[in-house]
Amino acid sequence: MRRNQLREIWRTGQAANNCWLSLGHAFTAELIAHQGWDSVTIDMQHGLAGHAELCAMLAAVSATNTVPLARIAWNDPASAMRALDAGAYGVICPNVETREECEHFVRACRYAPMGYRSVGPLRAPLYAGSDYLSEANKTLLAVVQVETRKGLENVDQIAAVEGLDMIYIGPSDLGLSLGREARADQTDRVVVAAIERILEAAKRAGRHAGIYCRNPDYAKGMMDKGFDFVTVTSDEGMIAAGALVARRFAR
Amino acid sequence: MRRNQLREIWRTGQAANNCWLSLGHAFTAELIAHQGWDSVTIDMQHGLAGHAELCAMLAAVSATNTVPLARIAWNDPASAMRALDAGAYGVICPNVETREECEHFVRACRYAPMGYRSVGPLRAPLYAGSDYLSEANKTLLAVVQVETRKGLENVDQIAAVEGLDMIYIGPSDLGLSLGREARADQTDRVVVAAIERILEAAKRAGRHAGIYCRNPDYAKGMMDKGFDFVTVTSDEGMIAAGALVARRFAR
Amino acid sequence: MRRNQLREIWRTGQAANNCWLSLGHAFTAELIAHQGWDSVTIDMQHGLAGHAELCAMLAAVSATNTVPLARIAWNDPASAMRALDAGAYGVICPNVETREECEHFVRACRYAPMGYRSVGPLRAPLYAGSDYLSEANKTLLAVVQVETRKGLENVDQIAAVEGLDMIYIGPSDLGLSLGREARADQTDRVVVAAIERILEAAKRAGRHAGIYCRNPDYAKGMMDKGFDFVTVTSDEGMIAAGALVARRFAR
Amino acid sequence: MRRNQLREIWRTGQAANNCWLSLGHAFTAELIAHQGWDSVTIDMQHGLAGHAELCAMLAAVSATNTVPLARIAWNDPASAMRALDAGAYGVICPNVETREECEHFVRACRYAPMGYRSVGPLRAPLYAGSDYLSEANKTLLAVVQVETRKGLENVDQIAAVEGLDMIYIGPSDLGLSLGREARADQTDRVVVAAIERILEAAKRAGRHAGIYCRNPDYAKGMMDKGFDFVTVTSDEGMIAAGALVARRFAR
Amino acid sequence: MRRNQLREIWRTGQAANNCWLSLGHAFTAELIAHQGWDSVTIDMQHGLAGHAELCAMLAAVSATNTVPLARIAWNDPASAMRALDAGAYGVICPNVETREECEHFVRACRYAPMGYRSVGPLRAPLYAGSDYLSEANKTLLAVVQVETRKGLENVDQIAAVEGLDMIYIGPSDLGLSLGREARADQTDRVVVAAIERILEAAKRAGRHAGIYCRNPDYAKGMMDKGFDFVTVTSDEGMIAAGALVARRFAR
Amino acid sequence: MRRNQLREIWRTGQAANNCWLSLGHAFTAELIAHQGWDSVTIDMQHGLAGHAELCAMLAAVSATNTVPLARIAWNDPASAMRALDAGAYGVICPNVETREECEHFVRACRYAPMGYRSVGPLRAPLYAGSDYLSEANKTLLAVVQVETRKGLENVDQIAAVEGLDMIYIGPSDLGLSLGREARADQTDRVVVAAIERILEAAKRAGRHAGIYCRNPDYAKGMMDKGFDFVTVTSDEGMIAAGALVARRFAR
Repeated sequence: MRRNQLREIWRTGQAANNCWLSLGHAFTAELIAHQGWDSVTIDMQHGLAGHAELCAMLAAVSATNTVPLARIAWNDPASAMRALDAGAYGVICPNVETREECEHFVRACRYAPMGYRSVGPLRAPLYAGSDYLSEANKTLLAVVQVETRKGLENVDQIAAVEGLDMIYIGPSDLGLSLGREARADQTDRVVVAAIERILEAAKRAGRHAGIYCRNPDYAKGMMDKGFDFVTVTSDEGMIAAGALVARRFAR
Repeated sequence: MRRNQLREIWRTGQAANNCWLSLGHAFTAELIAHQGWDSVTIDMQHGLAGHAELCAMLAAVSATNTVPLARIAWNDPASAMRALDAGAYGVICPNVETREECEHFVRACRYAPMGYRSVGPLRAPLYAGSDYLSEANKTLLAVVQVETRKGLENVDQIAAVEGLDMIYIGPSDLGLSLGREARADQTDRVVVAAIERILEAAKRAGRHAGIYCRNPDYAKGMMDKGFDFVTVTSDEGMIAAGALVARRFAR
Repeated sequence: MRRNQLREIWRTGQAANNCWLSLGHAFTAELIAHQGWDSVTIDMQHGLAGHAELCAMLAAVSATNTVPLARIAWNDPASAMRALDAGAYGVICPNVETREECEHFVRACRYAPMGYRSVGPLRAPLYAGSDYLSEANKTLLAVVQVETRKGLENVDQIAAVEGLDMIYIGPSDLGLSLGREARADQTDRVVVAAIERILEAAKRAGRHAGIYCRNPDYAKGMMDKGFDFVTVTSDEGMIAAGALVARRFAR
Repeated sequence: MRRNQLREIWRTGQAANNCWLSLGHAFTAELIAHQGWDSVTIDMQHGLAGHAELCAMLAAVSATNTVPLARIAWNDPASAMRALDAGAYGVICPNVETREECEHFVRACRYAPMGYRSVGPLRAPLYAGSDYLSEANKTLLAVVQVETRKGLENVDQIAAVEGLDMIYIGPSDLGLSLGREARADQTDRVVVAAIERILEAAKRAGRHAGIYCRNPDYAKGMMDKGFDFVTVTSDEGMIAAGALVARRFAR
Repeated sequence: MRRNQLREIWRTGQAANNCWLSLGHAFTAELIAHQGWDSVTIDMQHGLAGHAELCAMLAAVSATNTVPLARIAWNDPASAMRALDAGAYGVICPNVETREECEHFVRACRYAPMGYRSVGPLRAPLYAGSDYLSEANKTLLAVVQVETRKGLENVDQIAAVEGLDMIYIGPSDLGLSLGREARADQTDRVVVAAIERILEAAKRAGRHAGIYCRNPDYAKGMMDKGFDFVTVTSDEGMIAAGALVARRFAR
Repeated sequence: MRRNQLREIWRTGQAANNCWLSLGHAFTAELIAHQGWDSVTIDMQHGLAGHAELCAMLAAVSATNTVPLARIAWNDPASAMRALDAGAYGVICPNVETREECEHFVRACRYAPMGYRSVGPLRAPLYAGSDYLSEANKTLLAVVQVETRKGLENVDQIAAVEGLDMIYIGPSDLGLSLGREARADQTDRVVVAAIERILEAAKRAGRHAGIYCRNPDYAKGMMDKGFDFVTVTSDEGMIAAGALVARRFAR
C-alpha cells in the first residue's frame, strides 16, 4: 500500500505541514499539491466540497506525494466511509465531545474487527494499491476535533479511545465556546491554556496533536510548542492575500 | 450586515410572500429573484438542490433584495450549518415533533452561547458583510415545520423553544398524518382546524407563522388569516402552468 | 428506428407545436416533455445548454413521444454532428444566408453519400434503435433559419438545397436586420411581408416552414397562415409568467 | 402507476437478475438498462453517485423496463425519501442490525399511515404516473442488508418487520464481520452457513431474499438456492474485465 | 442599463486595473470581485472556464461593481455572442492579425445595423437592465489582442476598425512570435518596442490600450506608460504565491 | 519534461496499444489507465467528453504512465490548443482531406516558430514539468485522420506536412465514404486496399500509422501489418460486452 507520508514524518519525530482546501476545486487542489505540502485537507464542513468535488480533488492530487485528508461535515459514519472509499488517507471529524462520539467515529474508519467500516472501496485501491483491505486499518488516519468546553472537559477520555491517531484543534470554535473571540491564531490567555491542555492530553495518551493556523509564523510557533501537524494556510487564504494587491491599485 | 428584509416586513406588521424553488437551478432562481418576491426558499428535501446547487443558487440571487432561505432535508446540524455558511438567511427544518428536536435544530443555527453552530462561514460574509459573526444570531431565521399529528400535539412546547423564529406548515404531510388528503390549499375541516391550532400556538408564543400554498387566492386568504409568511407559488408550479398552453394545442 | 413524430404529423397535413427550451435544465425538459408537446427545441445558441446539458436533456425526454430538436450556436459541422450523435432528432442552424452555407450545414447532418456526417453515434441508437445508421438520413431533420436581409434575398436558393427539411424564422433577428423592432410576434408591415416571403419560398421549394412565437394566439395564427411548425412558448416564458403572480403580491 | 417489474417476476415465482451501478454515470446506466436487466441498483454507499448523479441516472433509464433501485449510504430517512422522490422504485439500506433500525428504515419508505415518508415527490410521478401517491406504498420496495454478526443474530426480528420486502446480503461485510475473508462469491463454510440462515429467515417471514455476486456462475447457483434477487455483475466489473484485454497486449 | 465602470474610468482619464480569472471557479471569482478590482476577465482560452463556468462566474460577481469581461478561445462569432448573452460586459478576442479578422469579431459583438450579433440575450438583461437591447452596442466592449508579428504589421488597419474599443497585448505570444522569450512583464528591447508600437497605434486611432502583466510593479509602470487597462494579477497567480509559504515549511 | 511513452515505444520499433475513451467519465478513465494501456484517447468528437470532462479525465490518469491523447471534434485551432493546455500529450484531428487542413492543424499544436499555438498552458506543466514550453514541440503528438475518399486521394500531400506525427485511420467513415459498409475491423476488399494505401503513404513519408479497431484479434493483425498504434477496445466496448452476461440471464 502507498505509504502514508504523515506517519513517516511522525516516525522521525518531525511535525507535518498541512494546507487547508476550502474552495472545493480540483485544479486548485492539484496546483497546491504540487507546491510540496506534506498534506492537504479537503474541508467538507465549512468548505465547498461535497462528495463529487472530493472525488475530483483526490484524483487531482494523486500524482504527488502530498497526503490527502478530508474533514467531514459531521460525525456520521457514511461521510467518513465514503471519504475513505474515495481515497482519502485520513478523516478529521469536527466537534467531538465525548468518548462515545469519538469511538463512534474512529470505528467507522476501521474495518472489522477494529471497527465497522463497510467493505467495498471503489477508488482507494487505485490510489493505494491492491493490498488496501489488509493495510488500511494501520495506514489511514482517524482524527477528531476537540473544540468546545464540553470536549475540553472530556479530552482525556476522548484521547484514550483506541485507534484514534490525532486530536486536531479548531481554535475559532474553541474560543467562542469558552466565551472568548472566535478566531484563528489565538493569543487569548484562556484559549491558549485550553490549547495547551488539549496538546498535553493528546501527548499523554500517545496521540498526535494538530492545530489550524492562518499565519505561518504562528504555525511555526505551534510546531515549536510540540504540535505534530499544523495547518499553515489555505487556498482561500491565498486568494484573500490578493486583496492587498487590489488595495494598492484602488483609486 | 445586510438586512433581513423578512424581519423588516414583519416589524411593520405585514406578511411576506415567498416563492418556492424546487428545481434546483441557479438561473431559474435568478430569474425568479428578479420578479421581486420577498423571499425564495430553496428546497433541499423534496426539491432537486443539493449543496452544490444551493451554493450556485444563493450566488445567483445575491444581486437582488429577495431573501434566500433553505429548506433542509432532515433535522441534522450539518445541513443547517452548511446552508447558513453558504449564505442562506434562514433555514426551514422539516417535520419537527418535539421540543428536543426543535432545540436541536434551532441551536444548530446559532453561534455560542445561544447554540452550537460551528464558526467558519466561507461565503456568507461576502453576501452579508464583514460583521457577520456578531450579527448572524439576530439576523438569520430558524424555522421549523409542524406537519404531523405528533408535532401538532406538541406544538406549544415546540413554539416555546427560545430562538425559534417561525413555525411553517406543510399542509400535505399534515393532512396525510391526520388521515385526510395529502394536498396543498386544504379546505378539509379537520386539517383546517389543525392549521388554526398551529397558527394560534405560534402567535401565543410570539413566533411567526408560515404556510405552503399553491393557489395565489388561497395564499391571500392565509395572509388575511394572520400568517406572516406565505408561499404563493413555485418554479415547478410555473412550469406546470405551461401544461394549459400545451393542452390548447393538443391534437 | 423510432419514428419522427414531426414527419408523421406533416404527412397528415397538420402543423406541429413546439416548446422552446432555453434554461438548459434536464428536469425542466422532462417536465415539459410530459406536457405533450409535439417537439421541444433545446437552444444552444441563446439558451444555456452546452453539450453536457444537451445530453442530459435528451436522456430526460426519451421516455416521451415528444421529438427533441437542438438549435446549435453557429453553422459548424461539429456542433450539428455532436447534437445528432447525442440523440437529437433534428438540428436547427441559425442565420443561414447563402446556398453554400445551407449546403455546408445540411450535408453535416447526413451520412455519405448524401453528406459528410461522421459515423460513430454513441447515444443515438439507444434512443432510436439499432437500425440507426441506415435510417438516420431519412428520419432526422435539417432545419435552417433565415433571419437577415441577406438570407431573405437568397431565400429561394437556400430553399432549393437538397435534403433541407424546413426553414425556421427567427422574427427578432429578422426584424432588426430589416431596420425594424427586434421582437417576437411581429405585426410590423415590413417584417410581416418578409415572413410571408420566406413562407412562400419554403412551400414553393417543397420545404416545411416554421416560426418562433411567444404568444399562443399569435402561434395559432401562424398555423392558420400555413406554418407547419410553430414554437408556442418556452420554459423561460413559463417562468416569466410567474412575474404576474409576484406583482399581485408586491407591497 | 407504472408496474414494478420485480414484483411481477416474483409473483410468477421467478428470480430477478440485477446489475449493480457503482460508477455513478448516467450514460453508462442508460447503456446497461438497454441490455435488458430486470433491475439496476444505483450504489450511493460504495459507488460514486450522490443525489445529482442519482437523478440523472434515474432519468437515463426511464425509457426502459429495467427497474431502478438505489442503495443509500446509511440508514437515514432523508436519503431514503430523496431517492424515492427522484423516482427510484426501491431502496436498499446497508447494515441493518436490529428490529428498530429496520422499522426506522421501512417506515421512511412508506406514506402514512404505514410510515412517515414526507409527501412531495417531484420527479417520481413523471416516471410512475399520476396515481403515485395512492399506489407508492404497495409498489416500491423496502430492502435491508443483513451483513454483520449482530444483524445475523437478530435476523428473525428484522425479517418480521411489517412492510419489509427483501433482505439483501452483502457477502464481503458479512464475511469480515464473522472473522473470515471480505469477498463476494463466498465459499467459506462459516459464511455460507450464515448466508443460508439469512435466506431461511427471510423465507420463513415471507420476505424475498437477495444477494450480491460478481461471478455469473455463482449468481446462477444462488438463484438455484432460492434467492429471488441476484446481483450478477456491475458496471465497474465490466470495465475491470477490460484488464484481460490489456494484459494480452502488455509488452 | 447598468453602467460600464470601465468606460467611466476612462472618461475621467484614468487607467483601470483588471484581475485575470484562469481557474474557472465561481466562488473564487466572487471572492476576487469583492476585493474591489475595476474588472475581472474570465479566460476561456487558456483558462479552465467553458460556457457553464462562465455563466456561474458571471452570476457570482453580479452583486459587485467589478466589470466582468470574457476572453474567448478563438475568433468565432458564437463564442463572442454567447459570452455577451450571459452578461459579460465585454469580450477579448485573442490573436487578431488582420483588419478583416478584427471586423469579423467586432461586428459579432454589435447588434444591427452596427454588426450581426443575434438577438435573444437570456441573462444579460437581468444583470444590465431592461433597456439592454437599445444600450448594449454603446456599453459593451469589443477588444482584440495583437500578439503576433503579422498582427503587429497590420496594427494600424486593425486599430482603424470601427467599433473597436481596445487593443490588448499578450506579451508571451508577442515575444515568442518575434523570436524572443515567451513571458509576461517583458523587458526585452525588441518586444518592448513592439509593445510601444501597438500602444501608439491604438492611441492614434482613438482606441484604448491594455496589457497583461503578472508583477504589480510592472503593471504600475504600464499605467504610467499610458495603458488604459492593465491586468495586475490572477487567481492562479494568487495560488502560485502560496508556494513561497510552502517552501518555508519544506523539510 | 515527462517523457512521452509512445515516442519511446516507437523508438524501439514496437507498436503501441491504445484504449479509446468514449464515456467522458473521469473515474472510468482512471480505472482503465491503471490497466496498463500504452495510451488512452479521450474522444471529444463522438464521445461524451467536453472540455470540463477532458480536464477531469486528464487529472485522473496522471498518476499512471499511460499517455493521454485527445481526439477533438473538428479541425479548429482552439480545440487543439485547449486540449494540449489541459495536459493532453497529443491530439487527433478527425477528417483531414488536404495538405492545407493538415498544416492548419499541425501548426496549431506547435509553438512558434514551428506553429502558432498560443502560449499560456495552465495545467500541462503540472503534469509534464517546468520545462514544458521548451520541450512541448518535440514531445507532443500531432495526429490526423484520413477517412474519406478525398483524404485518400490527397494522402501523400497530407503525409508530407512537416511536424505531422501520425496518420490515424477511422475505418467506419472511410468505408462509408468509399461506398462500403460503415464499420470497424474492415475486411471489405476496397476498404482494405485503402487502408493499405494510407499505411504505405504514412510510412513512405516517415510518419507513424494508427488505426481504430474493436476486436483484439483484428488489432493484433493490424500490428503485424505494420501499424504503430492500434486502438484495441474502448470503455464503451467493455460495457457493451456486459450484454452477453445479461443475455444469459434473460428470461
